[in-house]
Amino acid sequence: MSAKKNKPEVKILFTNHVADAIDRAVGDMNPSSVHVLVDVNTEAFVLPLLQAESKVVAGASVIKVKAGEMFKNLDSLTSIWKQLGDGSANRNSLLINLGGGVITDMGAFAAATFKRGIRFINVPTTLLCAVDACVGGKTGINFNGLKNEVGMFRDADLAIISTLYFNTLTSQELLSGYAEMLKHALVCSTELTNKILAYDVTNYNPDTLLKLLEESVGVKQKYVAADYEDVGARHALNLGHTIGHAFESLALERKSPLPHGYAVAFGMVGALVLSRMKFNFPSDILNSYVGYVRRHYGAFEISCDDYSKLLGYMHHDKKNDCAEFVNFTLLKSPGEVEIKVPVNDDDITAALDIYRDLLGLP
Amino acid sequence: MSAKKNKPEVKILFTNHVADAIDRAVGDMNPSSVHVLVDVNTEAFVLPLLQAESKVVAGASVIKVKAGEMFKNLDSLTSIWKQLGDGSANRNSLLINLGGGVITDMGAFAAATFKRGIRFINVPTTLLCAVDACVGGKTGINFNGLKNEVGMFRDADLAIISTLYFNTLTSQELLSGYAEMLKHALVCSTELTNKILAYDVTNYNPDTLLKLLEESVGVKQKYVAADYEDVGARHALNLGHTIGHAFESLALERKSPLPHGYAVAFGMVGALVLSRMKFNFPSDILNSYVGYVRRHYGAFEISCDDYSKLLGYMHHDKKNDCAEFVNFTLLKSPGEVEIKVPVNDDDITAALDIYRDLLGLP
Repeated sequence: MSAKKNKPEVKILFTNHVADAIDRAVGDMNPSSVHVLVDVNTEAFVLPLLQAESKVVAGASVIKVKAGEMFKNLDSLTSIWKQLGDGSANRNSLLINLGGGVITDMGAFAAATFKRGIRFINVPTTLLCAVDACVGGKTGINFNGLKNEVGMFRDADLAIISTLYFNTLTSQELLSGYAEMLKHALVCSTELTNKILAYDVTNYNPDTLLKLLEESVGVKQKYVAADYEDVGARHALNLGHTIGHAFESLALERKSPLPHGYAVAFGMVGALVLSRMKFNFPSDILNSYVGYVRRHYGAFEISCDDYSKLLGYMHHDKKNDCAEFVNFTLLKSPGEVEIKVPVNDDDITAALDIYRDLLGLP
Repeated sequence: MSAKKNKPEVKILFTNHVADAIDRAVGDMNPSSVHVLVDVNTEAFVLPLLQAESKVVAGASVIKVKAGEMFKNLDSLTSIWKQLGDGSANRNSLLINLGGGVITDMGAFAAATFKRGIRFINVPTTLLCAVDACVGGKTGINFNGLKNEVGMFRDADLAIISTLYFNTLTSQELLSGYAEMLKHALVCSTELTNKILAYDVTNYNPDTLLKLLEESVGVKQKYVAADYEDVGARHALNLGHTIGHAFESLALERKSPLPHGYAVAFGMVGALVLSRMKFNFPSDILNSYVGYVRRHYGAFEISCDDYSKLLGYMHHDKKNDCAEFVNFTLLKSPGEVEIKVPVNDDDITAALDIYRDLLGLP
């Protein structure tokens, strides 16, 4: 019998031999039963590949939920718990989460709470999940109209990261994930920033991208290890998210949702402008970054008529508890992070003006 | 901002000045808001007392759920999450669980998962909860027809243990809680066993009982610290539970439920008989224990016609994974614990015969 330990570290394998990696790892873990969580997409496009190549997956019972952020909810969670129980899972069972961030967030929470915690492996099938959601221990569901309102911190026993299934992703999905790699580069070093800015993810090579992913996830792990429960240093990973979340909310209101990574990519333009204003962030890197965004992501269109709404969203973001200022994560230079920098509305407004200039908006 | 850390230790205050203890502790914790979870019983009988004496409780928002084991379920949990969110709880809020084991198990789980974990204080109002449920980190709800099917391990930030509210308990409720104190004594030492067997809880003095509680909870804490996630040494605390659970199931089938503590008290008679058979457990202590049970608990009536059912329940208990034997926690002597002792059906049957003899059953 072996219950899962809660500790802020996760074993990660970077490999494009996923079936082998699963069979070897699960052999070592020796669970009493194996259950694979999929959504309708990974059931159709990824599960059959793994069932053909992995003995473990071929013999596992399949737990299915609907696909998409709107099904990251209590009903799906309840259904996973029930399917585990009805499938005779016990404390020594194992859950494999096969999918994007919705699947790994929700599957991890289900496993971490089923019979007070069973072991689980994350196998991300999207770039966004591989670089972000599948590691770091944040699990949960949306509830009561709020994102991740219910959840906990718990690491996977293992994450198996590959680029094997990215051929089913659109360019937009690739770019959405790559925005988090841009972010990890910016909070790491000038060297990694230049390397990531020199790569075109829409035309990736599976092995090269896997190497870049390993470097990128390593950056996240460093911040997670320093501050597992996200009360300090880990806020570095919020770079671009304060303005980005406001852009996402505005886009939702316009009934034209913005993919999360795009929102972060655009939000980081604003954050780097503020970083230049407050901390003299190097202009050459700002310009290279803006060039990359314009080439690959285009621009999220805003006018000065949107400013008051955007400021409202930023002040109501859960990460800000002071009415007068909005707290930002900013950079002195790539890798030199300043968290909880209070910024007033005048400076945010100035940054939004410059954002529009830089991205060629009227 | 302060998220809760998960660590296998809990701060416990033993005091009959509960209101003072709450006000002082919560003052130090400095939460952004305080929420008190009650059921209809503690709302009626305990909450008004605390609201009159504690500034913190008087100013807290009240979260109410229905009373009883059958409402330790997903609906109640969902309702607590919703009431926390609607009451503007954030990551720096605090939940006070005021009630018996259902309230502390479920309230702890709700707090540990709301916004990935907020702080919580357990204030047990029953002896059973004070001596057992409110410490040790086991949280959860019943689900899919199974006890504690969903939950996690997470300690309260503080447990405030008093005997102040026990005057609302019946003798049966006191004795049900005291059975766990008998158990703690038996897995601790001959000295504590004799002390606990010499006390009549139905005629308790609040201060004396509080001292005994402190000693008793200390025993539990020792086993919990050695094996937080209950995969080894902590099984000591299962003493009496293997036969006890079978008695509970049989009583349920007879439509005449047996209080959990009574089942444990009777189950420990069987466990001590097996301990005498297997490990020569001292007969004088066995006899003293049986005398205490006969005087205070009476007997749970079984005949040899019930044996096959009882054996069936024991083999299906989740703690046993081997078909041929049932694993028991037994004692060589008080404090000398043997866990995972495989016992075959013949020996269990013999122990049930002796159980009937000792308790004067036909």
